[in-house]
Amino acid sequence: MIVALAGGVGGAKLADGLYRGLPSRDLTVIVNTADDFDWFGLRICPDADTVMYTLAGIANPATGWGIAGDTFEALGMLGRYGRDVWFQVGDRDLATHVARTERLRSGMGLTDVMAELASALGIDAKILPMCDEPVATEVLTPGGPLDFQEYFVHRHQSDTVNGVVFRGIEQARPTGAVLRALTEARAVVFCPSNPIVSIGPILAVPGLRELVARHPGARVAVSPIVGGRALRGPADRMLESLGHDVSAYGVAALYQGLVDGMVIDEVDAALAPRIEALGMRVLVAPTVMVDAAGRTLLASKVLDFCEQILSTR
Amino acid sequence: MIVALAGGVGGAKLADGLYRGLPSRDLTVIVNTADDFDWFGLRICPDADTVMYTLAGIANPATGWGIAGDTFEALGMLGRYGRDVWFQVGDRDLATHVARTERLRSGMGLTDVMAELASALGIDAKILPMCDEPVATEVLTPGGPLDFQEYFVHRHQSDTVNGVVFRGIEQARPTGAVLRALTEARAVVFCPSNPIVSIGPILAVPGLRELVARHPGARVAVSPIVGGRALRGPADRMLESLGHDVSAYGVAALYQGLVDGMVIDEVDAALAPRIEALGMRVLVAPTVMVDAAGRTLLASKVLDFCEQILSTR
Repeated sequence: MIVALAGGVGGAKLADGLYRGLPSRDLTVIVNTADDFDWFGLRICPDADTVMYTLAGIANPATGWGIAGDTFEALGMLGRYGRDVWFQVGDRDLATHVARTERLRSGMGLTDVMAELASALGIDAKILPMCDEPVATEVLTPGGPLDFQEYFVHRHQSDTVNGVVFRGIEQARPTGAVLRALTEARAVVFCPSNPIVSIGPILAVPGLRELVARHPGARVAVSPIVGGRALRGPADRMLESLGHDVSAYGVAALYQGLVDGMVIDEVDAALAPRIEALGMRVLVAPTVMVDAAGRTLLASKVLDFCEQILSTR
Repeated sequence: MIVALAGGVGGAKLADGLYRGLPSRDLTVIVNTADDFDWFGLRICPDADTVMYTLAGIANPATGWGIAGDTFEALGMLGRYGRDVWFQVGDRDLATHVARTERLRSGMGLTDVMAELASALGIDAKILPMCDEPVATEVLTPGGPLDFQEYFVHRHQSDTVNGVVFRGIEQARPTGAVLRALTEARAVVFCPSNPIVSIGPILAVPGLRELVARHPGARVAVSPIVGGRALRGPADRMLESLGHDVSAYGVAALYQGLVDGMVIDEVDAALAPRIEALGMRVLVAPTVMVDAAGRTLLASKVLDFCEQILSTR
């Protein structure tokens, strides 16, 4: 069984490649929930939903979030009611939030709620929230702290990030499902997601970093930084303003002690010796997943890399 | 100023006629809220919304409820999640419930919430919930008690109604806005809504029946029963199973002591003497509002009738 740690779009793509490449029940995706927030009283889980929609084959390929072909009638009406609608929620996507919020209010945990939704969409893999407790990423900027979606969506990641806080993380606990998945996992794949605000919160759930650090399986990370830039989102700017190297090497350094191998893009092949000096192996591969074939190819290379690591222990 | 008491579709139509016929700020519609219920944790106010959408000019003329041209993407997705979707909520309509529920949860009263929504839709008239407290109509049937929407929508009003209970009504209080409107009203119009489950709950709010009974203005009711049948909904079957006369006379008898005049349809002209014997005047008029002109015509006849009543005091 393979465990993937994932944030949103990039994570969902690799998770999808793994899902297509593996006997499906053998994949568990542990998703970041520190981006979750309340929108008009409804609980929205952007990363979990992006992974779910992607594995269900209904994700919007153009935006990376939301559902393909979704309409925005409800959002338009909320705008007519004078409400702030900078966070775009499609009508079908809205149903997800309505269904989820009802279950959460009835006392069901997020893990069970997501399992119900994913199963209804025909997904065989497990999509596990990193924890059931609410955690909220706050971004510290020169202008003051910002809620994550305020920073990410509303202000288009235009603020300099001087720090990141995961509010509520001290109260979070790894769920039984997450612990079971990690115990059973033959390999742990760090998807090419933002190491600070996507993979970071997962590892910050008390106990999880240690579990990964001591994990006996193959642990492999795919760099979300390619040629010194994030393929998507603010990971590059965040790494820089937080004093890290803006490169696959910088990402590897953040994961030192947690991974056995690093997958970097072909354009970054020259970084291999520096990364190897951190005590990890390096696989050079085409990491930019432009289509379904790209996802499957990268997934298969990642899985081969894991087997290689396991076989040489 | 005119006060109209209204339930859903029939009430909304006459309210609309009054709204178009009067300097708009001079209309206050007091709406039944005992049909209100929670749907996936969202508060739905079917009658208030039907009146609001109708006055805003966006009601769906084909169904009588909901918004013209609305789509049902969210509902379809809820169905895909395996949820029970017998209650039809369109995407734009859903936005109303989302916006309302958020405000209610933040502690705003329903009166203020509806005022905000109606104002955003450009409505100058006041649409006032009969009270701010939640009240829930329960229908007593041979098979046991049923929630109103279960009876009305899900079971298509197929059960015999042996009784009606308005749960929570003892805790309800007339709002300041309702009291002010009734105090200032020159006339009170009972719209052609179901006397048992639409007008009934309004009058059952503690104190409201007495206020109407003692009201010094003209009080006029339009019969929702035409030729022994309800134009819409189960009013005729309810009147019958509850032991009332299934006619404009039966409705008039229910309103005895509360109204000065009864407006009945031309096909029911022969009932006039019996109704007059109840101590009220009768106006025979075309009460079936098939189009906008029909609404305006009936409204103007109702208003003339009120003036006539006031002038002969």
